[in-house]
Amino acid sequence: MKFTCMQNNFLNVILTVQKAVSTRTNTPILEGILLETEKDVLKLVGTNLEFGIESYMEANILQEGSVVIPSRLMSEVVRKFPEAEIEVKVSENNTVKFTCLNSTVTLQGFAPDEFPSLPEISEKEFIEINKMLLSNMIRETIFAVAVDEARPILTGALLEVEGKNISMVCLDGYRLAHRKGMIETAHENLKVIIPGKTLSEVSKIIDDDDKQISIIVSDRHVLFDLGYTRIISRVLEGEYINYKQIIPEGYKTRVKADTKILESSIDRASLIAREGKNNLIKLSLQDQKMIITSNSESGQVYEEIPILLEGKDLEIAFNARYFMDILKVIEDQEICLDFTTSVSPCVVRPLKGSNFTYLLLPVRIYA
Amino acid sequence: MKFTCMQNNFLNVILTVQKAVSTRTNTPILEGILLETEKDVLKLVGTNLEFGIESYMEANILQEGSVVIPSRLMSEVVRKFPEAEIEVKVSENNTVKFTCLNSTVTLQGFAPDEFPSLPEISEKEFIEINKMLLSNMIRETIFAVAVDEARPILTGALLEVEGKNISMVCLDGYRLAHRKGMIETAHENLKVIIPGKTLSEVSKIIDDDDKQISIIVSDRHVLFDLGYTRIISRVLEGEYINYKQIIPEGYKTRVKADTKILESSIDRASLIAREGKNNLIKLSLQDQKMIITSNSESGQVYEEIPILLEGKDLEIAFNARYFMDILKVIEDQEICLDFTTSVSPCVVRPLKGSNFTYLLLPVRIYA
Repeated sequence: MKFTCMQNNFLNVILTVQKAVSTRTNTPILEGILLETEKDVLKLVGTNLEFGIESYMEANILQEGSVVIPSRLMSEVVRKFPEAEIEVKVSENNTVKFTCLNSTVTLQGFAPDEFPSLPEISEKEFIEINKMLLSNMIRETIFAVAVDEARPILTGALLEVEGKNISMVCLDGYRLAHRKGMIETAHENLKVIIPGKTLSEVSKIIDDDDKQISIIVSDRHVLFDLGYTRIISRVLEGEYINYKQIIPEGYKTRVKADTKILESSIDRASLIAREGKNNLIKLSLQDQKMIITSNSESGQVYEEIPILLEGKDLEIAFNARYFMDILKVIEDQEICLDFTTSVSPCVVRPLKGSNFTYLLLPVRIYA
Repeated sequence: MKFTCMQNNFLNVILTVQKAVSTRTNTPILEGILLETEKDVLKLVGTNLEFGIESYMEANILQEGSVVIPSRLMSEVVRKFPEAEIEVKVSENNTVKFTCLNSTVTLQGFAPDEFPSLPEISEKEFIEINKMLLSNMIRETIFAVAVDEARPILTGALLEVEGKNISMVCLDGYRLAHRKGMIETAHENLKVIIPGKTLSEVSKIIDDDDKQISIIVSDRHVLFDLGYTRIISRVLEGEYINYKQIIPEGYKTRVKADTKILESSIDRASLIAREGKNNLIKLSLQDQKMIITSNSESGQVYEEIPILLEGKDLEIAFNARYFMDILKVIEDQEICLDFTTSVSPCVVRPLKGSNFTYLLLPVRIYA
């Protein structure tokens, strides 16, 4: 195998594919990237068995073949080469020689036979979605995905399509994030649960331009097709929680507040809250004011912010970090908080629009 | 004690003084900053017993007094306040209340009695030096200071003044860095050994403008006086190594090379060298070329760069990181390397000027 290519192109593709490569595994070949010639282009593949990324790049193929090269070392070597043409030549016994100007680096590669091939996806379901919309949907929900594996299904996000409506839901037993959007071409109903880790890498790879990305869903896999780059992931099997029945319909207390003012008050209250055992902030709603307090051994915080209050006064407590997570992703200037009782979930939405719904369970205070 | 001040001024002074505050100590009061009114200004003091920083700021003093406040928490609280006026009020039992707009944070402080006072420095020796020069002198030598405490004296830098000549030397048994400069006013001969940690904080605090800073030296302490801010450190007692006799006078092999080209070649060779046991790179000097090689289990690097070679051909080996440390701080386009034998030190200097001298011990290769 032998080819030449430009340093910057090569580095970009390596860095993309590397996002799927495990850093610590007992199978050294999985710490590598597969390089393979396909006619006149070069294909790079990385996988951690949960998801894989393959990416194509133009290269001047001088001799066909394939090899697996340690990913971390190759990316560092290529990064440190000057912006010039690189020649890559694989000898017998999979020794790979990189030559760039007066510099030659030789790395020991692996035979490609042992490298796991990415699953072939029979095109079953196929939707097209605007890249920026997908990127926003991920960013605005992914924080609520479960991190522990106690209920594996909750480590994924539920992607649902109904006609032209698309939505993504994440929930972890303490909070729920729901983001809706529209696709251009109607599609029959579809539900797929995609691992949170896959989505967070997808959001790093898709550039925020206004173009479309194809998502292809089969029984066991999902494929994000960006043209030159494809991300293939297993899906989580099983039934997702019927989240719609969790979201309360009515409210007894409704608060409208400025997002940034609320965020910076809760941010300060968090400083003291997180020194305590349960990272708790208390909200007291009355007289068109929200009073936010926290206390721990280190001190106390008292914040008072103006709100529009409709309905009953209320005292309620939350985990400070979970509340901050929601406020951080809402870019709208004003938000609406709906409460029922001090032990039932609070629903957070931007004041305008209906694309986002966040739900946050309060912490019961035994006072 | 009670005062008001602007959030951004207060934060800047806290962040400056905090550089001297220990983060983990068995004496909680040492994790705090002393706040003290002095007539119509406020003084903040942090110390870790090795060195201390005191800084003055304008404040509207409403009631005199002093208190010690946990540094990390106070800096986070003040950082998260809006850019507005802050009122700070200390109650009995040293409770400190910070009020900024509609936000009130209360922290538990300490009585100031237990806070160690910074040493008074009787003005014995006094020099003035350009801030930018001092900052450069530190940056260009400090990397060579010893990190282990086997020979405590080497954890400091030797600052020497002879007339208008000033110089700083650091060495750790493997390499030596020597930087010379000029001061405006001649001073009688002076030698002082300043802890490396102090100097590295000094270089973070002094802004790189063209103004002067005063350095005051007493038997046991050194004071860097920046006007509003003063950094006071103990000095290291004992005799510094007679470094001048270590620097070889002549050479048998002289190499002139482009700094950036040499740096990027050694940088690539380091990638493979550091995977090995002793982080070794080999230099082969002949035919107006320098060939740099490294190898380890992970692979090999071969770099060939054009040089001007004068004298005998040579094969020599170095610790890759130590060589990189030197190349990183030399900003001159061309450097000169003087060698005697493969087991004697190499002297590295910029080609022009004589302000810098670096000395690097080779690694003996048993071939």
